Amino acid sequence: MTDRSAIAAAAVRLRGHVRHTPLLRLEGREFETPCPVALKLELLQHAGSFKPRGAFNRLLSAHIPDSGVIAASGGNHGAAVAHAARALGVTAEIFVPALTPAAKVARIASYGARVVQGGETYAEALAASRERQAETGALEVHAYDHPDVLAGQGTVAREFELDAPDLTHVLVATGGGGLIGGMAAWYAGSVKVVSVEPEGCPTLHTALRVGHPVEAPVGGLAADSLGARQVGALMFPVAQSHVAESVLVADEAIVAAQRVLWDRFRLIAEPGGATALAALLSGRFIPPAGAQVGVLVCGGNTDPAKVTS
Amino acid sequence: MTDRSAIAAAAVRLRGHVRHTPLLRLEGREFETPCPVALKLELLQHAGSFKPRGAFNRLLSAHIPDSGVIAASGGNHGAAVAHAARALGVTAEIFVPALTPAAKVARIASYGARVVQGGETYAEALAASRERQAETGALEVHAYDHPDVLAGQGTVAREFELDAPDLTHVLVATGGGGLIGGMAAWYAGSVKVVSVEPEGCPTLHTALRVGHPVEAPVGGLAADSLGARQVGALMFPVAQSHVAESVLVADEAIVAAQRVLWDRFRLIAEPGGATALAALLSGRFIPPAGAQVGVLVCGGNTDPAKVTS
Repeated sequence: MTDRSAIAAAAVRLRGHVRHTPLLRLEGREFETPCPVALKLELLQHAGSFKPRGAFNRLLSAHIPDSGVIAASGGNHGAAVAHAARALGVTAEIFVPALTPAAKVARIASYGARVVQGGETYAEALAASRERQAETGALEVHAYDHPDVLAGQGTVAREFELDAPDLTHVLVATGGGGLIGGMAAWYAGSVKVVSVEPEGCPTLHTALRVGHPVEAPVGGLAADSLGARQVGALMFPVAQSHVAESVLVADEAIVAAQRVLWDRFRLIAEPGGATALAALLSGRFIPPAGAQVGVLVCGGNTDPAKVTS
Repeated sequence: MTDRSAIAAAAVRLRGHVRHTPLLRLEGREFETPCPVALKLELLQHAGSFKPRGAFNRLLSAHIPDSGVIAASGGNHGAAVAHAARALGVTAEIFVPALTPAAKVARIASYGARVVQGGETYAEALAASRERQAETGALEVHAYDHPDVLAGQGTVAREFELDAPDLTHVLVATGGGGLIGGMAAWYAGSVKVVSVEPEGCPTLHTALRVGHPVEAPVGGLAADSLGARQVGALMFPVAQSHVAESVLVADEAIVAAQRVLWDRFRLIAEPGGATALAALLSGRFIPPAGAQVGVLVCGGNTDPAKVTS
């Protein structure tokens, strides 16, 4: 079960392997919102996203066979697993779909992993990785639906709480739900965790509406990082209990948030990395009076030309 | 005189106008150096560099005539003055030389300032701005050689000390010397302040060698931000007393540091912004045993394509 104690144990395990990413506190109400905002700059993490937290926690908690580790990913999880595998001296095979951007494929390969690209979406890459895993016996590192992965991602919330104990709301982008599941498990209702998804990938939004994980469309700009088709079985009950609100944003709002992050902060965020902020800037999430809002900027693996041009 | 009390007063004045920029603490010895390193991410400051600190402190300390403010700049100071002028509701005229990159000219104009581009270097833009100032009577906001500017820039060191009281060394890029002058005045020897300049703009390095400010060459990749030709008269005695070491780095080392900041941290730093880190990565500065090194990443106003391609 993913709870504060599992997450605190993960934080100890991750020491020296992941960065405690910094918080940028904006006291000046810079976003034309009626409340102060704190951006957690998780895009400064190793491998360019929060994913090494879950990957390291999984690898450090398991016995790794000689055949190494295997994972399917839209890109960021694959880069994280490849990075963690290299750091720990084991081999990695990473399966990515056709929609994974070239920048992410190159990053995975740069860590010395074998990359296999094929299938349309993450779900197809996952199926291919499982066929391969049955042959090799490598350790599967699921991108989100594993307790060690959830606990690892939950360490983001632990740091957020340490650095900003006064937050009332935290906005997080949701794909397969490993990140928000871990974070909601940490906060357990003490902070309102708000899920933000692109309109093109409403995975958690749909699941919460119908009452169980269900297949949702995978499309739009952030599909490579948030296009999981279905949220994890492990995270769903956590989300039902501890996700306060689920909102959707248009791709145009994501692009606008990427532009704001570049123009005002000189930060390059990928679409999935700017999705949480997009909810605040576009008014899809409206902070109530007295709110102190934290926003997770969770990934930066993109070609900057796509952000700045 | 620029001392801790003037800098503390500046910090009060700047509240709500500048961001307390975050620190990224790298405990894992990520730079193959034998010591931990803390990066202060001042490139996340308003207008993309540390310069608004000095600009706001100057504007908030002076009477501003109806003709507004005027400044000469390689680009970053101009952007900062334009930003501060807009925030305070006064007009600004900014003189920049031909070598100022298009990205910086566009940024200055985006704040509503009048931009005049001409002359080869900052020194020529300064001369032109002074001719104009004599006509208009606008308030001159010098890029570095003014006590209020020094005190404003010194607030970087105050934040650095608050967030990382354990540092033994701080590496800072030097142009005209406003930043390092302010920072050295704050630390006053309690931390070893290391000046880093490109080989093409050895302004402080030469001045310290000969014992007084002297004209130095202006060239190389970082000339738009560090090419002041001569350090300020006000900062020089501070540097003589409180700058522990002055090192030079090659342009190739600056480019390599920019690449590391992008590849490992997803940060876009301009050449001048990566110059301090270049000293550490290239071995021009070698931390002694037991050192705890702070590095200021001071600006990000560049075209990302120049960093990532």
